[in-house]
Amino acid sequence: MTAPQDNSPPKLGIIAGGGALPARLAAAAKAAGRAVFVVMLDGHANDPTLESYPQTTLRLGAAAKILDAMRAEDCVDIVLAGKVARPSFSAMRPDWRATKILMKVGMKALGDDGLLRLVGQELEREGFRLIGAHEILTDLAVEEGVLGKVQPDEQAMSDAKHGLSVARILGQADVGQGCVVQQGLVLALEAIEGTDEMLRRSALYKREGVGGVLVKSAKPQQDKRLDLPAIGLKTIEESHKAGLRGIALLAGGTMIIDREAVLARADALGMFIVGLRADDDQ
Amino acid sequence: MTAPQDNSPPKLGIIAGGGALPARLAAAAKAAGRAVFVVMLDGHANDPTLESYPQTTLRLGAAAKILDAMRAEDCVDIVLAGKVARPSFSAMRPDWRATKILMKVGMKALGDDGLLRLVGQELEREGFRLIGAHEILTDLAVEEGVLGKVQPDEQAMSDAKHGLSVARILGQADVGQGCVVQQGLVLALEAIEGTDEMLRRSALYKREGVGGVLVKSAKPQQDKRLDLPAIGLKTIEESHKAGLRGIALLAGGTMIIDREAVLARADALGMFIVGLRADDDQ
Repeated sequence: MTAPQDNSPPKLGIIAGGGALPARLAAAAKAAGRAVFVVMLDGHANDPTLESYPQTTLRLGAAAKILDAMRAEDCVDIVLAGKVARPSFSAMRPDWRATKILMKVGMKALGDDGLLRLVGQELEREGFRLIGAHEILTDLAVEEGVLGKVQPDEQAMSDAKHGLSVARILGQADVGQGCVVQQGLVLALEAIEGTDEMLRRSALYKREGVGGVLVKSAKPQQDKRLDLPAIGLKTIEESHKAGLRGIALLAGGTMIIDREAVLARADALGMFIVGLRADDDQ
Repeated sequence: MTAPQDNSPPKLGIIAGGGALPARLAAAAKAAGRAVFVVMLDGHANDPTLESYPQTTLRLGAAAKILDAMRAEDCVDIVLAGKVARPSFSAMRPDWRATKILMKVGMKALGDDGLLRLVGQELEREGFRLIGAHEILTDLAVEEGVLGKVQPDEQAMSDAKHGLSVARILGQADVGQGCVVQQGLVLALEAIEGTDEMLRRSALYKREGVGGVLVKSAKPQQDKRLDLPAIGLKTIEESHKAGLRGIALLAGGTMIIDREAVLARADALGMFIVGLRADDDQ
């Protein structure tokens, strides 16, 4: 005798930061016949379409309430998605639970994704199953090779590979996920200012008419279920404005949001998008 | 029998980029009774007081002429000093000699100080003796320990050490020489935009009232006779404007220009300046 089995997929809990990704995940889960429950992170989640799903708004620091809400809603699978700007300790107003989590490592050990990693570990310790956004929206994933119609030339590929190695080295220090490279020279490194701001800056230091590549990569030690670097239509537009020739992405370690639209726009602008495997990638 | 000996120090050749350092070197050499000859790099050298020394202006790309001029002036010791913004290949207008140097490595291998390293190697191959600016102006050198009157607190020291390790990791990729760290988080990484621009940017992402440290370091593989990262009065002012608590410098791998004035100003502003040794430093 086996236990009675429910064949509908388990409910998906979405802990939502900013940007379009959380709502895309909710829509994809719903389309697949899966119930969802959304915790909108106060001050971070900013897509109003999320409000059409069962949801509640909680502070990032309200760890106990987030865990309780997920449990009350019978969520086992949980995905963390969307941008979460670094909160100050005081703005986070950590509850006892969040404080306990933070005390484990101390604030000083928190790099720009150290906090997320902690949250992920804590969820698993509590019996939830942490899943990656690309496991729900499979077209988010970046594969190896030229993704659009435009081929990168030799200089662009050389810059892309150099940028990837720089980004990976940076990632070892839990810093940054991107850079802009032109003719072997790194024009800009991304810390916490974000990709768009880095692109605007790199335009100031770029030479005219000789290429330039935006490179995005996960960190070598990054949990690929958490906060993979993503590009979207805005990234294409900003890269074009900055005069770049194309974008190189770590295959299996970055995401493209709205892949079809992104590739069509890159094609139309004559920009390449290429997925590269890192030498050090697992 | 020994050869007749001239006890006056040998003439010093100065290949001068931008900023105050080349003229300081010329003045220090002159004060020590040493003759100098200056090659002002066209478009880079910008201190008019250099014109009071025997000098000529040449393009960075005019490698043969620079070597010829130094030889004609009987310079054996040569110091390279001052900022040299990355020239484009065409703006450099390399002569046959410079082209030959560049061909050896290919433009793509040139990181932001790869070019200088090459120039240094070429000078030595030609029989010149490359010397470091800190060998002439000994007070440029940064030693280990707190240099001014203000003591960094524990958080500041923790940020300084973290920043130094990030800067060293970055340097492995021949990129950047600096970063800004606050409470364990890297707010900004320096690529080619320069320290002042990085400081202005970091102010936008900094939290109020909780410190922040500018860190400058040489790259692990850097030839310490060439283009060591330097701070000066402007760096203090910009760091203060950005709301930072102090500055951490790699001991033996950075320079302070106008040390006395810099330390006095830092003291007056309540900012610390500390020299740190890197774990990986030779």
